[in-house]
Amino acid sequence: MNIDKLLKPGKMAIVGAGEGEGFGGDTTRNAVAYMKEHTFYLVNPKWKTIFGRRAYPSLADLPEDIDLVVICTPAATVGHLIREAHKKGARAALVFASGYKETGTPEGEAAQTALCALCAELDMALMGPNCAGFVNYTEGIHAFAFLPSVRERKGKIGFVSQSGQLCYSTMESPVPSFSCLISAGNAAVTKIEDYIEFLLDDPDTKVIALYFEGIQDGGRFAACLKKAAGIGKPVVALKTGRSEKGERVAASHTGSLAGSDRFFDALFEKFGVIRVEDLEELIYTAQTLAVLPKLPAGKGIGSMNLSGGETGICADLGERNGIEYPDFTATTLTGLTAMLPPYATPANPLDMTATLSYDTERYAAALRCVMNDPGVDLVLVGYTLTQEITDPAIRYMADAMEIVRKEANAKPILILPFTGNTRNNDFRLRLEQMGVPILPPPQYAFPLLANVFRHIGHDSAAVDDRLPIFGGREKEAGGSVGAPVTLTEHETKTELAHWHIPVPAGGVAVCEEDAADLASRIGFPAVMKISSPDILHKSDVGGVAVGVTSPDGVREAYRRIMANVRNARPGAAIDGILVERLAPPGTEMIVGVKNDPRFGPAIMTGLGGVFVEVFRDTALRLAPVSAFEALEMIHSLKGAALLGGYRGKPPLDVDAFANLIADVSAMAAGMKEELIEMDLNPVFVCAHGVLVADAVMIKRGAGSASAAVLRTP
Amino acid sequence: MNIDKLLKPGKMAIVGAGEGEGFGGDTTRNAVAYMKEHTFYLVNPKWKTIFGRRAYPSLADLPEDIDLVVICTPAATVGHLIREAHKKGARAALVFASGYKETGTPEGEAAQTALCALCAELDMALMGPNCAGFVNYTEGIHAFAFLPSVRERKGKIGFVSQSGQLCYSTMESPVPSFSCLISAGNAAVTKIEDYIEFLLDDPDTKVIALYFEGIQDGGRFAACLKKAAGIGKPVVALKTGRSEKGERVAASHTGSLAGSDRFFDALFEKFGVIRVEDLEELIYTAQTLAVLPKLPAGKGIGSMNLSGGETGICADLGERNGIEYPDFTATTLTGLTAMLPPYATPANPLDMTATLSYDTERYAAALRCVMNDPGVDLVLVGYTLTQEITDPAIRYMADAMEIVRKEANAKPILILPFTGNTRNNDFRLRLEQMGVPILPPPQYAFPLLANVFRHIGHDSAAVDDRLPIFGGREKEAGGSVGAPVTLTEHETKTELAHWHIPVPAGGVAVCEEDAADLASRIGFPAVMKISSPDILHKSDVGGVAVGVTSPDGVREAYRRIMANVRNARPGAAIDGILVERLAPPGTEMIVGVKNDPRFGPAIMTGLGGVFVEVFRDTALRLAPVSAFEALEMIHSLKGAALLGGYRGKPPLDVDAFANLIADVSAMAAGMKEELIEMDLNPVFVCAHGVLVADAVMIKRGAGSASAAVLRTP
Repeated sequence: MNIDKLLKPGKMAIVGAGEGEGFGGDTTRNAVAYMKEHTFYLVNPKWKTIFGRRAYPSLADLPEDIDLVVICTPAATVGHLIREAHKKGARAALVFASGYKETGTPEGEAAQTALCALCAELDMALMGPNCAGFVNYTEGIHAFAFLPSVRERKGKIGFVSQSGQLCYSTMESPVPSFSCLISAGNAAVTKIEDYIEFLLDDPDTKVIALYFEGIQDGGRFAACLKKAAGIGKPVVALKTGRSEKGERVAASHTGSLAGSDRFFDALFEKFGVIRVEDLEELIYTAQTLAVLPKLPAGKGIGSMNLSGGETGICADLGERNGIEYPDFTATTLTGLTAMLPPYATPANPLDMTATLSYDTERYAAALRCVMNDPGVDLVLVGYTLTQEITDPAIRYMADAMEIVRKEANAKPILILPFTGNTRNNDFRLRLEQMGVPILPPPQYAFPLLANVFRHIGHDSAAVDDRLPIFGGREKEAGGSVGAPVTLTEHETKTELAHWHIPVPAGGVAVCEEDAADLASRIGFPAVMKISSPDILHKSDVGGVAVGVTSPDGVREAYRRIMANVRNARPGAAIDGILVERLAPPGTEMIVGVKNDPRFGPAIMTGLGGVFVEVFRDTALRLAPVSAFEALEMIHSLKGAALLGGYRGKPPLDVDAFANLIADVSAMAAGMKEELIEMDLNPVFVCAHGVLVADAVMIKRGAGSASAAVLRTP
Repeated sequence: MNIDKLLKPGKMAIVGAGEGEGFGGDTTRNAVAYMKEHTFYLVNPKWKTIFGRRAYPSLADLPEDIDLVVICTPAATVGHLIREAHKKGARAALVFASGYKETGTPEGEAAQTALCALCAELDMALMGPNCAGFVNYTEGIHAFAFLPSVRERKGKIGFVSQSGQLCYSTMESPVPSFSCLISAGNAAVTKIEDYIEFLLDDPDTKVIALYFEGIQDGGRFAACLKKAAGIGKPVVALKTGRSEKGERVAASHTGSLAGSDRFFDALFEKFGVIRVEDLEELIYTAQTLAVLPKLPAGKGIGSMNLSGGETGICADLGERNGIEYPDFTATTLTGLTAMLPPYATPANPLDMTATLSYDTERYAAALRCVMNDPGVDLVLVGYTLTQEITDPAIRYMADAMEIVRKEANAKPILILPFTGNTRNNDFRLRLEQMGVPILPPPQYAFPLLANVFRHIGHDSAAVDDRLPIFGGREKEAGGSVGAPVTLTEHETKTELAHWHIPVPAGGVAVCEEDAADLASRIGFPAVMKISSPDILHKSDVGGVAVGVTSPDGVREAYRRIMANVRNARPGAAIDGILVERLAPPGTEMIVGVKNDPRFGPAIMTGLGGVFVEVFRDTALRLAPVSAFEALEMIHSLKGAALLGGYRGKPPLDVDAFANLIADVSAMAAGMKEELIEMDLNPVFVCAHGVLVADAVMIKRGAGSASAAVLRTP
């Protein structure tokens, strides 16, 4: 959908304009205060003039055509006004009114459906309903229903918010500057994805900041993020609904499908989206990326502070957030030693003492010295810029930064204040104009830096981005793909073997002799397990024998297992007994697949047992993943150390395990129409190679493997 | 040390006063601007008048005696001036000059030693050297060498900082208000502990806020914290040096002994001290506690927001920080349903929509309704107070809060903004005056609330606070307590048995027959281990046999172990072979003791193996601990779920394990003079009872157990 008429209208009309309180008055006030006189019309039959400007009785009375109608009147009037506007050439509308789907009532739902149908009929874009409007700062369009305080806000952040209140709070923060600020409301016609596409194409938008509670079309949303990663435009996202209660709030607030929060993490991970936890972090992350002339080339921070206390805070919170301060080279240390007072100990993070900060030349020299260190990719200047300038240090420091910023090969400089609610506005603007952002206080700043580093470390080329997204619940609900069926272990493993995933040799025997014969062919020791679509937990019914070493042993085990199972579960349908070569012992890992209706299949891994169940130490990505991504998943586990040769054991074959994860993810993507979920538990990871020891799959349609098939590895 | 003359001087003199830049000028400017005319004298032989006030050529020329001399001149002049001031009656001095111990030079060290000796000789208190001074806002004393911007700062926080720079940043934050603000500098004579004692006794100080890098006297510091807990005056502490790099910074910055950071955690835990991670958190935590008329009675938050977005952030960040929003009762829900628009869904956290916030009466009714819920202990009002008031909601909301705050049984109200760098000053002051603090943005606010809840949950009565602190390295260095000796397992366990800690029956056999006899007496199956002061890892040398079931088996194992050990370690001294009854299997836990020269013994516990080594899932407290504290330690482990009946196993005897921890801690406290460290690994925790399966102790002086002693359980 082309929404240029909506966000960049040549002419717009405000219907319900006025001088009073409320949507009409405030929208009019904003337009009159900030827009060029000839770019908008005011419409209200009650007044001849509004704020001294001519008011027209109706849209039909306007002297020329318009692109956008801004409707400040109640829901009941909206349909008629849209038709009128369409006759006046409008191809876009903005509706502030509530009373639609967000009410959760059948009437509201019906009103929204009718609104969508009308816009489809007239081919019109529509912002809202139940929104606060937008401001396009680049074009000087103010179609916004809250009164902001006066400050310069034009900048490089394109911001889209599902919440009007958070949109207003963002606007009123003194920190961010925007290309475009959009309160999407119910996003009934024009979707969040449409706005993102607009901002991706907008040359004045350098960073996209999003607040949302849920999305409607996983495939389109993913495509937007993929495009953003491709063109290198950072996306910063605040998505609520991580917690159970938060998910409930999100679902009741916008009616959009919330849930599956971890799938969003996986999607963001795939495309290098920076996920943040609250509005303050969203604002600062976006503004930092908007102000920096270029992203740092790597993760090496050179930290320069005026005191030991500040340096200690940087050291502690850096470590807590995985920030590394590379040791300075001998050259850097020698340079700093020559500049600093004799009692200072040069190191990174650096306590320079306050002495240099009152001398532009010397401060510039120190900055340059740290910046020239080959391990340093950005300089983090610890300094609390106060509201009033009582201490003149910042004058000298800002002058020094201005000099150094202009030099060839200058690296990014960022300022870290140690308290918030400060920052002198003149210096803030001056620093931002020279490309030096002021960060929030440390407990926001260090996670922000860690996120930026993760973002720059994101390697689009190493990611498998062929996401096989389902495309909405409709398809699932269609029923053409059949009812869910749980496959037996043998059926599941046979399916796995088709996809070249290593499973033990084995097959299902239907009598003692068959079993003994099978075991002899595949080799001893054998493991035997009851094969029944009705029995999931085989050990619980005495359905397992491990380490059987002879044909006679196999016969005996066959009889025993059958007797146990018939005794414990007399009604169960029994295929026979699965006979396999016993797997060599290895470290137990698990690999799981879950197919989400909006995101398609995701793949999960973790260490087996308590690590997953108690410590919840798992990694999840959207399928398919490359072997590179699979390795990232493995290394993101807290328990990853156990794979690297723990307690003198040889290191395990992590590469083979990564390949297995990638293969399973490719299988999941390939089977996206029928696979519902799959659990490989455990997978044995050995010093050489890997093997799936147990597995179960739930899919639509029957298992493809006949019980009589003999798998060979 | 009584430091009233220092912090509450009747008269003070500023030596080196002037109108220029630097310490002398700025201190003079502060005194002239903020102090009563008759409370201070200016001394400088160069001037007749300073800022129109009379300047005296020397201290001797002053017309009357003084209490405090504030020395703005360089280090070389200090000794002479202190003697002169003493002659004029001064019993306290303040020295801004640097050039002392902080330089790390022998000259600086000598200067500081001389300064201390002089103050001891004259019995004078001294702030600094190398400090920024102090302001006593209650008494109107300004002896401070940085120029603050103009704002009202009088309040209830007593703040002590080792860093002058952080002291200044704290002062310049618009948030906090102080009874007293102290930059302690090198704290050469008057110590951090002295200042804390002053603030504990000061009725105008409601909260003590500390920034420090290390302390000098663990025992006195602990006594201060114990007193604070006893009188219910909250202490909020920012201590840098958590990380390895941070520790290095702290050590080089003040020269105070840093290190052992986890001991500080244990000390803070013991006395309910709130530890924070940066200055912003310190400021806000202290101000919140200072403003609240009373602490909440419990941890139940009623969260009220104007939008779904804000509510979602509260839900998500609440969960992440362990905050619980109790479900509202049916009465509360009915009440809210009647007030809210039909599309709102009452729940906790609550999205009230913005409708009520423009009507004082209705907003007050909603506040009251949430406040009256029996599960609610405090009301958290989500609202972003902007710098300029463009949206009038806060007028109605503040009026409503004012009404409700005055009602009987009002519960605490706190305001949570969603962005920072805002807050209209008039409303901030008005809200603070009615006892409603404004929190920082969510990612500071929720950890802050979690800390406050931990603080109010601290139960002084359930804590064993008889800390057996060593009292400094001097004692350890004295050597009177002997050189470190590693006890054998048998010696260690015999020591443990003396303290009634459950160990298996066993003894050391010196020949085959002895071993067989011993095993027969204590019962089979037996476990046998080589007993040698030279062999720590017994399995590595073939020195262990497990599950020996007969006297003949014992004889055979005896010969085998001896042969193995003589082969692997020919030179090792061998006591014999430890023969024990094999412990029944249980979940493996570890318990450790480490005796710190400044803090005394600390006790650690965790689950055995990878849980400690890879996940670092341990709990540490200062010894002795009560069984209550031991239970808290156990429940603080991430892996605690494994003890409660994991995977259908019976729940383990956690009470017995807590008793064992308490007993080991009592033993550690009792042996504080000789114990260096001890490791019980593993301790088997069973469904009924616990048993120490292996143990080693390092202490000063020889083991007390003869190898021939037979332990009985």
